[in-house]
Amino acid sequence: MTFVDLNNLKEYELAKGVRARIINCESMSISYVTLDAGVDMPEHKHINEQVVNVIEGELELTVNGESRVLKRGVVEVLPPNVPHGAKALTECRVIDVFQPVREDWVAMMKSS
Amino acid sequence: MTFVDLNNLKEYELAKGVRARIINCESMSISYVTLDAGVDMPEHKHINEQVVNVIEGELELTVNGESRVLKRGVVEVLPPNVPHGAKALTECRVIDVFQPVREDWVAMMKSS
Repeated sequence: MTFVDLNNLKEYELAKGVRARIINCESMSISYVTLDAGVDMPEHKHINEQVVNVIEGELELTVNGESRVLKRGVVEVLPPNVPHGAKALTECRVIDVFQPVREDWVAMMKSS
Repeated sequence: MTFVDLNNLKEYELAKGVRARIINCESMSISYVTLDAGVDMPEHKHINEQVVNVIEGELELTVNGESRVLKRGVVEVLPPNVPHGAKALTECRVIDVFQPVREDWVAMMKSS
């Protein structure tokens, strides 16, 4: 059994004001993200399917020019390779899940 | 883009006092679980790797006779096929992620 106290994990700054603690398990990556109010996560894409779970705050997500506000109980399922960006309308806490493992993050975490 | 308002999803009773809304996406299943205070999720296992994210409350998880308390920020990574059970020490809200998709749930949701 593997218990992980997230407070023991290094925090990575994915973009200015966007900080993540990351678990790469066997088949998935999970990121525990804090976004400061007002910050942007610039548009990006990846091969991984992603589910965005906002657990605190309001996050405006833009996909293909269409924007919607995510909050607790309103979830986004992002297929692979779809460009997306986000703006934190308030301070946000988000649990993002990815499949397969984010190999770009594995490499980032090895090199840091 | 697929936005899902969890309030629009049917709630399934996985065990007495354990209710879940479920998203089966392409490569993962995500369950949004509410456990009443004091209830047990009986020991079970599955082929799916699982990550247990408690976002509210305290959940005692028992794996191979070893128990630990999960809460916000203390996460469990469960390898495939490991028997595990849980007891809600308080009312809990949990986001469980599974890979691959829980085909047992796909069948359950088709038949209900």
